[in-house]
Amino acid sequence: MTSLSAAIVIIGNEILSGKTQDQNIQFIALELEKIGIRLNEVRIVADIEEDIIEAVNGLRTKYTYLFTTGGIGPTHDDITAKTIAKAFNKKYILNKNAQDIIEQHIISSGREVRSDHIQMAYMPESAELLLNYETGAPGFKIDNVYVMAGVPYIMRSIFMEARKFLQSCKPIISKSVEVSVAEGAIAKQFGDLQDKYPAVEMGSYPFKINEKWKTNLVLRSTDEDLIDEAMVKLKQIIENV
Amino acid sequence: MTSLSAAIVIIGNEILSGKTQDQNIQFIALELEKIGIRLNEVRIVADIEEDIIEAVNGLRTKYTYLFTTGGIGPTHDDITAKTIAKAFNKKYILNKNAQDIIEQHIISSGREVRSDHIQMAYMPESAELLLNYETGAPGFKIDNVYVMAGVPYIMRSIFMEARKFLQSCKPIISKSVEVSVAEGAIAKQFGDLQDKYPAVEMGSYPFKINEKWKTNLVLRSTDEDLIDEAMVKLKQIIENV
Repeated sequence: MTSLSAAIVIIGNEILSGKTQDQNIQFIALELEKIGIRLNEVRIVADIEEDIIEAVNGLRTKYTYLFTTGGIGPTHDDITAKTIAKAFNKKYILNKNAQDIIEQHIISSGREVRSDHIQMAYMPESAELLLNYETGAPGFKIDNVYVMAGVPYIMRSIFMEARKFLQSCKPIISKSVEVSVAEGAIAKQFGDLQDKYPAVEMGSYPFKINEKWKTNLVLRSTDEDLIDEAMVKLKQIIENV
Repeated sequence: MTSLSAAIVIIGNEILSGKTQDQNIQFIALELEKIGIRLNEVRIVADIEEDIIEAVNGLRTKYTYLFTTGGIGPTHDDITAKTIAKAFNKKYILNKNAQDIIEQHIISSGREVRSDHIQMAYMPESAELLLNYETGAPGFKIDNVYVMAGVPYIMRSIFMEARKFLQSCKPIISKSVEVSVAEGAIAKQFGDLQDKYPAVEMGSYPFKINEKWKTNLVLRSTDEDLIDEAMVKLKQIIENV
């Protein structure tokens, strides 16, 4: 079975300045899990050409898919499309299909088409459009790189189009159990269990509620039977803590 | 004036799987702004030794400071301290001070010290401790790398200790104005204003509320007078849209 991997590049000073809390990583991560694609890495970079190129070229060659969010609007700080063209050594051109789609969207909502609308139709030569049913201006795909908006509800619309291009594997299944102890109390046995089931990824995530420690123990795998088998043993461990 | 830069490496499968929403980036970003340190990049990597080493060694040489969060607990998936030792080519040893601190914390809360508690006192040789007033087990600093817990309230406690080591610059000031138009409507004039004030970073962040577009226009700089001057001009632009 092929193993499918992915990375995200979040392009946006607003996340790095702390002004905005990212809302896209979790959505993409969960959607990818459903179709068996593992999110291996995320980078958040500023609106700086060389930083974007380094991240995009470093990750698109390393993973099956790369998703970018942010920087495809009409303002001066939206440099993603132009920069992706540079990363691929492609011309940055007016995509006529994108222009038609944007113009139709604007005209159908009773507005006049302005140059800033058309600006969003520029993209790398040979890019394929990813339609945006929310606000018209499409994202695009070039090779294994999927370029999406940063505004969450627009990103989601474009991601659903991107999904049509993605291969899928057996979904990655995750089951968890909450225990009312700090993680240290079962660290040794949980580690031993991980050694017995190398194909099940086991994680331990402590949290505190009302001054009491609890721990979420998470088992992840594409093999549900194996998760269930390991879960039975984990519950035996927990009962004896 | 020195220019201070920083990066974060978030170590954690729980963020990449979408199970957990990161809460640490925004806190660190805002704290750094206050002391004039610019957060330039964030990477989120899995609990995989080679991925962590690549991110840590790539970023610690590129920026003034590197902060890591996650993976310093007592369970088998907590590989950060050992991996940081490897990244620095340092021995991974029991830090006696850390051991004392952890033991005192456990004993003073009426519990018995177990081996998983002591596990958290292992760190790279020559690491300096970053005290944790919440749960005892300290983070550490090695060279320009600050290694902190992933659980947000513990991370915050350790970060406040890390801050004592950080140089500071003039704080990065951010002022914004909200306009009731889509960003495209002022894209051209806003871009022209950016050209006139290269030392003020100008960003445009659209959002939709009750089906109406609004845009946040943000001006950032260490020079407040310059921000205020640009803001006067920006408001003139907005009045004429």
